[in-house]
Parts: sequence; C-alpha cells; structure tokens
Amino acid sequence: MLTNVKRLHELMAQAELDAVVATSPENVTYMSGFWAMSQWVRRGPQAYILWPAPSRGESCLIANSSALDLVADQKPWVQNVRRYEHFVVDRAPDAILNDVDQRQAALYELPDDGDPLNALCMAIHENALDRGRIAVDERGLLPGYFDALQGRLPACTLVHGFELLRRCRSLKTKEEIVRLRRAAEIAEHSIAAALRVARAGASEIDLARAFHEQTIREGAFPVLGCIGFGSRSAMVNVQPSDRELESNDVIRFDVGGRYQHYRADIARIAVRGKPSKKLTTYYHALHMGVRCAYDVVRPGAAASDIFLAVVNAVRSNGLPHYQRTHVGHGIGIDGYDVPALSPSSKDIIEEGMVLCVETPYYELGLWGLQVEDMLVVQRNGVESLMSTDGCLLTVTE
Amino acid sequence: MLTNVKRLHELMAQAELDAVVATSPENVTYMSGFWAMSQWVRRGPQAYILWPAPSRGESCLIANSSALDLVADQKPWVQNVRRYEHFVVDRAPDAILNDVDQRQAALYELPDDGDPLNALCMAIHENALDRGRIAVDERGLLPGYFDALQGRLPACTLVHGFELLRRCRSLKTKEEIVRLRRAAEIAEHSIAAALRVARAGASEIDLARAFHEQTIREGAFPVLGCIGFGSRSAMVNVQPSDRELESNDVIRFDVGGRYQHYRADIARIAVRGKPSKKLTTYYHALHMGVRCAYDVVRPGAAASDIFLAVVNAVRSNGLPHYQRTHVGHGIGIDGYDVPALSPSSKDIIEEGMVLCVETPYYELGLWGLQVEDMLVVQRNGVESLMSTDGCLLTVTE
Repeated sequence: MLTNVKRLHELMAQAELDAVVATSPENVTYMSGFWAMSQWVRRGPQAYILWPAPSRGESCLIANSSALDLVADQKPWVQNVRRYEHFVVDRAPDAILNDVDQRQAALYELPDDGDPLNALCMAIHENALDRGRIAVDERGLLPGYFDALQGRLPACTLVHGFELLRRCRSLKTKEEIVRLRRAAEIAEHSIAAALRVARAGASEIDLARAFHEQTIREGAFPVLGCIGFGSRSAMVNVQPSDRELESNDVIRFDVGGRYQHYRADIARIAVRGKPSKKLTTYYHALHMGVRCAYDVVRPGAAASDIFLAVVNAVRSNGLPHYQRTHVGHGIGIDGYDVPALSPSSKDIIEEGMVLCVETPYYELGLWGLQVEDMLVVQRNGVESLMSTDGCLLTVTE
Repeated sequence: MLTNVKRLHELMAQAELDAVVATSPENVTYMSGFWAMSQWVRRGPQAYILWPAPSRGESCLIANSSALDLVADQKPWVQNVRRYEHFVVDRAPDAILNDVDQRQAALYELPDDGDPLNALCMAIHENALDRGRIAVDERGLLPGYFDALQGRLPACTLVHGFELLRRCRSLKTKEEIVRLRRAAEIAEHSIAAALRVARAGASEIDLARAFHEQTIREGAFPVLGCIGFGSRSAMVNVQPSDRELESNDVIRFDVGGRYQHYRADIARIAVRGKPSKKLTTYYHALHMGVRCAYDVVRPGAAASDIFLAVVNAVRSNGLPHYQRTHVGHGIGIDGYDVPALSPSSKDIIEEGMVLCVETPYYELGLWGLQVEDMLVVQRNGVESLMSTDGCLLTVTE
C-alpha cells in the first residue's frame, strides 16, 4: 500500500480531524492506489478520496463515471465508490464478463451523484460526518469548490488539508520505496543509454531521445530531461537543443522519469576528453558535498543543519565561494516532497524519508556541474538508491 | 506566434477589460511562448503573463528566478520580465558570454520582486492599471491567491479569466495548426510502429512501448496511451497490461502525445485475423459518423447540430442503438479545448478551430471500437489533419 496509514492517523489525531479528503492527483493516488488518468494528464477533472478517522466510517472513492473502468482494473484499496455524471457503456444481454468487467458493470449500477461535490457530500452524510472537522486538500479542487463545499456542509468545520497530506507522504512505505528505487535505477540506465550515443556531432536532442527511449523501454514515463552541453550545461533547466557535442564539453544531466507514478530526480556529469584542473577541483568539491550527506543525514537531524554541513563540505573541499538556496528535497509521488534541505527549513529528518541530495553549481559562460543522488533514511543512517557513486563520467574523444 | 491577438483583443473589448492575466501553464505558454518547466511538470509553481488591452501598457512575463534560463533560451514574445525569489548563478569576471548567456545575465540583474503576487502587483502598478478591470485566470493560482491579489489591489476590479482565455484559444493561429498537424502525424506514425510489433504473444505493454518510443523518436512526448486488446478494448481509459494478443482480437488505440506543447488525440482500430460480421457492421457505422462530420462541420454550424448529425449517421448506418454524451471536442495546447460537440453545447463552429471528432462504442465483455480524427475548420468546410482515413486496420494472424 502507498498510504502510510499509521502516520496519517497520527497527523489526523494531532489536528483533531474526523476525516481528510484528498483531491489533487498525487494525493488521490497516494490515498487509494487509484490513478484517474484524466486528472493526471489534464488540470480540472475531479476525483476525491474521503478518509475518515479510525472508527469514524468507511473510506470512499469518488470518480467520474467515465473513469470507472480504471477503478475496476486497478482495484484500489478504497473499495467503496461513488460516481458522478452520465456515461454510456453498452452490454449485450448474453455477454460473458470476466472479473474486471463484472466489477465495471457493478460500478455502472451505482447511482449517479450528479457532480463531484454532491458525491463528496453524499459520502460525508453517509458516514455521519456532517458535523465533523474535515481537512480538505485545497490544491486539487476547482476554484470556488472549497467555499461551495463549506456552503453545502454548514455544520462541518472545513480546514485546508494539502499540507497535512504532504507531511504524511514524507515517510515512505515499503511499496513506495520499491517504486522509487526502480525509478532511480531507470534514470541511471537512461543516462548510460544517452552516453552511448554521445560522440562527435551528436546533439543534445540525440542524447535526450536515447535517454527517454530507455526510460520508456523500462516501463517508466519521461518527465525531467535537462541535458545540456558546454556552456549550455550552466542553464538550470536546460532543454535539449540541436547543439552538437564538441571536444572538452561538459554534459550535464538533471533527469528522471515516473515509474508506477513515482518520480526520479538525479544528476550526473560527463566530460568529453580530459577535464580541466578547475573542473576536476570543483567537481570533487561538489561530490564531497553529496558524500557528506551520507554521513550527516539520520533520523533526528535538522534539515537546516544538513544544509550547512553539505555547503561547508563543498566549500572546504575546493569550491570556497559555493552558494546555494537548498541542497535537496524529498521525493515521492511528487518531485518535491518534504523535507526541504534549506537554511530556513524547520524539517527534521525521519526514518522512511526519501531524499534527493544535490550540489549544483552553475557558472555562466563556462559550464554547470551537479551531483544529485536519491537516498532513503534508515534507522541508523541512510541507504543510497543509486548504483553509481556520482564520480565524474568521461566520454572518449 | 501562438496567441490569437485579434481574437484576444475582441474578447477583452467585449468584456470591457483593461488587462488579462494568464496563470495556468497552458495559458502562460499560449500568451507568451514561455514554457516554465516547473509549472508544467508539477502543480504549484507560479508563472504569469500580464497582457494589457491595446494602448493600456506593455505585456509582462513573471517568472521564478530559477526559470530565467528558459526565458533567455526561449525568447518569448513578451519581452518585459519581472522575477521573484532568490537564486544563485555564478560568473567569472572574465567570462565570455554568448547571446543566450548575455540575456540570462541581464535577467539576473533585474530586481527580485520577492514573491509572485508582488511581482504581478508591481507589473500592474507599472502600467497604471491599479484601477482597472482585470480578468485573472483563476485556474493556475494557488488557493487563496485570487483573494489575496484583490486585497493587494483594492481599487482593481478582478474577475475570473480562465474561460475567456479558453475561448480565445479555440481559434488557432497558423503556428498552432502547424504544431497540431505534426502532433497528429506523429500519433499516426506511432500507431503504425505499435502495429509492427503486434504479433501472437505481444502484450499491450509491448505495443505501448513501441508507440511511445516512436513518439519520442519524432520529437514529441508521451501523454495518452490507451491501448487495449479483446474485451479490454471496451475499457474507455484502458491502460496497457501484460494481456497477450490472441486470434481475432480487436486492438483499440486512443492515443496522442505532445509536440512542441501541442496535443494529439486520435483513435484507430485494428483487428487480428478476420473481423466478425457484427464488428464490420458496427465499425462501418462509427466510421460513417466521423465521415459525416467532414460534411457538416463548417463555420456557423451549431456544435449541438453536429452532435445530432454524427449520432444519426452512426444510427442509420448500422448501429441503431448508438448513444453518446459527446462526439468530440476542440484540441490545442490542452486536450479538451472549445468547442464541445455535445447535445447541450452552445458553441458555434468558427474558422480556425481544430476539432477531434470521435464515435467511440464500448460493449462490455466484447470489444470497444472508436474512430477519432483531428480536423481543422476552414472558411468553407474542413481539412483533415490525418493521413489515414480511419478504415479498419488488420493485423495478419
């Protein structure tokens, strides 16, 4: 299961909640396993999960009728379903239905609740939560829906729920870690595939194609594909162009796809030919910054202290003027989860967090360098999700 | 240019607006050419375009400082930029900068406006629009931001702007049609690539991989990949599984990627072996429905009349019990643009619209069939964006 139920119930108890409602695609999938395609590929379509506090009722999945095939096929762990809107699926009287189609047929038999807010209100009524304190994820609702919901539930106390669910998501379950590990592995394989086509005359776009094709081949979907050569590697979000690879070019990868909805975000640097002294020195310093994280990240550590330790490691290992706004972030079903490894962060590291630790350095007109690893926080330290250790890669001339 | 400036200014004049503000990723890119990566790959990051009415001021692009490299590289047609938040990029005193880096360096010299709403207020002040009537795209703002903006601009009249921009986007510019034509072509090529691996024992996932790899190879990004065999083809949003291809299976494709930010959405059906009489009859009826659209879609036609004509064409050509909630929709930088081809639609067809016309039919336990073409509305009728005509495809046993 993706949901960290123990953590969720703790956070709900602390906030004295009778229920939470997930509305944004990441939270809906996280709370149920239900991936409502239209909600993910566009902005606007509505799907919700109502999750009552323990012994306060039964969780409920709310979906557009046109998405019931996905409910039947995916078997989300929230099994009580309400649907809204009219949708037509035919069926011959003598049709023989397999398990999935039987579930689908049963779902179409449910009453049509009309619209998503009405369906949510019905689920809340059904569980006698009409006078409850409910945290509603405000991020996935259409504008005006939060107030409209409060209007329809005058005796309810509605509060914003996005941040609570984001906090809950920060401590990964075993299944989430399995997916993140595989997402990281696919990103590493995809960098290797891109480097196999990195010869004279190959363009950034050529490498990006090889990268994304490998990602697809391994069952993931392209998301992040910042790949830049030479001075273009100093562009933070560099989008692949027809710039061709030249001698002594730096190649910067800041990349990662989505595997079973879970994100990767890693960075590696390759150099064509022999790296300059300056590059070798700076890269070593940045690499030592990430390595330092492996020593200092552990349950109980303050994220702001980790930031300081990592920046100091970079500075004391050869890049004394290093400045950064952050040196990493959580990762999961969203690309930026809790914690933030920044000087102003109040986050405390906990067992089960999965972090991207990164030390990017961008020098305009020269190059950008970056090491970014994904790692999981364990009881006594960390485990890397990477199979490569972030050393400078080389491409022969 | 992507923006239909003439249409935009007409709609702004009708609504008596002094300015509009784009906030959702589709509208920001549409109004400026600026593709702010973080805004597209996640939900939450903010980028805006302020677009004053003619002679009411200069358009302004508002971006996070960490996205200024993309502004420099993409050269959006809104050239006046405001930035917010702190971000560090280094530069050696003796660095020699190319054009893009010079632009980037100049952008980092701009003052930091602190946060996105403040930057937007500054742009509004700068253009003396403080007492204006401004339509703000409510969809891309974080929850609470619309009211917060009104609070910071007490003399402004703020109204919702999403629907106005959506209407504006319905009449495509030449550049948009070029992109949509190519997106459609790539989707067709990708179906052909998938069918090349459709032999006994190949799974839905195998076809999906071949499909998406071709999409990547041609420079587009995967979005929609519903590919289902046999009774799974009757699932509306079917997600590829390890189900293997069997004799007489229907293969349904409802697919399309994103090319230079513009979407494709097409459907084709293939059958392995010899199709049954029922399949041939029903498919012919559905195909005649889409063909009928080529005759009835023209400027001035009511979308609801097109719906009736298409449904009637399907019914009178061999599928008399055909029922649908809609038979198509606009497409552009979003997958569902204006118009909606539905019985309750108030939309009127206009020259420059690009439509997906579709006649899906889902029969539980048997198969799903679907024809979906993309076409562009011209002065006297329509032009297909497809190179194949939607005939039933066959895969040899």
